[in-house]
Amino acid sequence: MDDIAYILGVIATITFSITGVLAVSGKRIDIFGVVAVGFVTAVGGGTIRDVILDVPVFWIEDALQLLAAVAAALLTFVLRERIHKRYQLLLYLDGLGVGLFASTAVVKTLGLGLEASHAMVMGVITGIGGGMIRDLLTGHPTLLMSRDLYATPILLGMGAQIVAFSSGLLSSDQAMLLGVATIFIGRSLAVFFHWQMPSVLTFNGKD
Amino acid sequence: MDDIAYILGVIATITFSITGVLAVSGKRIDIFGVVAVGFVTAVGGGTIRDVILDVPVFWIEDALQLLAAVAAALLTFVLRERIHKRYQLLLYLDGLGVGLFASTAVVKTLGLGLEASHAMVMGVITGIGGGMIRDLLTGHPTLLMSRDLYATPILLGMGAQIVAFSSGLLSSDQAMLLGVATIFIGRSLAVFFHWQMPSVLTFNGKD
Amino acid sequence: MDDIAYILGVIATITFSITGVLAVSGKRIDIFGVVAVGFVTAVGGGTIRDVILDVPVFWIEDALQLLAAVAAALLTFVLRERIHKRYQLLLYLDGLGVGLFASTAVVKTLGLGLEASHAMVMGVITGIGGGMIRDLLTGHPTLLMSRDLYATPILLGMGAQIVAFSSGLLSSDQAMLLGVATIFIGRSLAVFFHWQMPSVLTFNGKD
Repeated sequence: MDDIAYILGVIATITFSITGVLAVSGKRIDIFGVVAVGFVTAVGGGTIRDVILDVPVFWIEDALQLLAAVAAALLTFVLRERIHKRYQLLLYLDGLGVGLFASTAVVKTLGLGLEASHAMVMGVITGIGGGMIRDLLTGHPTLLMSRDLYATPILLGMGAQIVAFSSGLLSSDQAMLLGVATIFIGRSLAVFFHWQMPSVLTFNGKD
Repeated sequence: MDDIAYILGVIATITFSITGVLAVSGKRIDIFGVVAVGFVTAVGGGTIRDVILDVPVFWIEDALQLLAAVAAALLTFVLRERIHKRYQLLLYLDGLGVGLFASTAVVKTLGLGLEASHAMVMGVITGIGGGMIRDLLTGHPTLLMSRDLYATPILLGMGAQIVAFSSGLLSSDQAMLLGVATIFIGRSLAVFFHWQMPSVLTFNGKD
Repeated sequence: MDDIAYILGVIATITFSITGVLAVSGKRIDIFGVVAVGFVTAVGGGTIRDVILDVPVFWIEDALQLLAAVAAALLTFVLRERIHKRYQLLLYLDGLGVGLFASTAVVKTLGLGLEASHAMVMGVITGIGGGMIRDLLTGHPTLLMSRDLYATPILLGMGAQIVAFSSGLLSSDQAMLLGVATIFIGRSLAVFFHWQMPSVLTFNGKD
């Protein structure tokens, strides 16, 4: 992967470590648990992606990513009172992290010569896998049990990225930035306007 | 793997995607979550199997399996009211899917030159792994916490398959069909007669 | 890996299978579930380690480890009433198992030429991964949600082991034994004196 994708990946790792720690800040959990939660949130999705793709796991190949996740978690623990007041900001930061993770995963998967369908699945796994492991380990209901509009911007962004790149309209880097921007803006609008999935696209108890 | 095992594997993938979606149909979950649950139920067990065996993950090698799982989940969501009335039928269908997954995993594992004990473990992981991940992600108690007679038919069927094949009595395909039939019939009888594990083979609070 | 590390690894596998089964002994769970829980507790952490390191999974390469875990779980089920009375003893046994798993994982990871930070992460994953999967599958809150002093002795022991080995003070085997001893003694003291993480290093609801 080239430099831009790498740098964006490191930023996503740090972002997710911070949001991971803040997601458990109301829980009774010690400093080791905090670092473990930050680390798992940051690298969990990408680890599952790399294991399934059978390529070297990114934080094994590059210990900087491991250290970035741990350092970000520790710093967030120390500054937790100051950061927690900006929780709303973090929902937007999370949207940026999801966009970065999903779009870089698309680049990595297509770069292995796999199908667009694989790239979409890998983008979703990388984008939300870490948060799901965090929710399981800390006893929260997972994202799947929420009606927040979370996955839709990811799917739209990755779709735009893949179409723009495969059609030759944009270069790989340009298409990636389009994907990140679409996901980030879509998710930010969903947070700001409290958008939810319409009922017709939702199971509910009355079915 | 040969043609019969491949076709049976695709049928099992579709079956599990359907039952996975129906298992969450009483929950509040949106269409993305529905597809994710169907996909994970369908491919989760086989993915863990392939990663542990260090062979290419089956739906990476063959995108048709990925598309079959997603399409089956979407169709089940659309037809959910009609299918849900046949829930009892689905318990039998699930028994067929488990049989297909377990028996094809035995063939795959023995084909790698591994031991019978490995084949048994891989059959169990492939047969029930996807359903367990589904239960974790959707907040259900897992299969392990149930007294339904679920694992016993799987173990008997795989045992029969391995003995029949290793002794040279049956070919690999014939032994696989024996395994599938044993698991399907055993599980169907357990559903029909509400068989449970006898108390002497169960931990309980009074121990 | 050499003979001492191998033998200690098998002892750790058996130990964790026993403690895994006893951890669910108050739950309603049948003999299959018991064996599955013992097996997963015993091999889960090491399986995740090997998959991430992209080396052959230890119980695939060596079926003896698989059989040891299953046999230990079955025997524990049979003798459950007698063993359960010694539950306190098991907390110490668990500390020994964690020490063995963490320290042998450090040796394995450094032996692949990876960084000290990788060795620490792999030690933690191997030491506590199996217990976490067990807790998830059986519906317990995980270790992360506890204030028991559990991870600190592991981190101290692995740190001592890595420093002693990297500085050339001790051989790999000697450093491993130092690591095991530090973890076992530290964890035993924590159990005996009911040590908990100090509040300043703990998130709580008031933050």
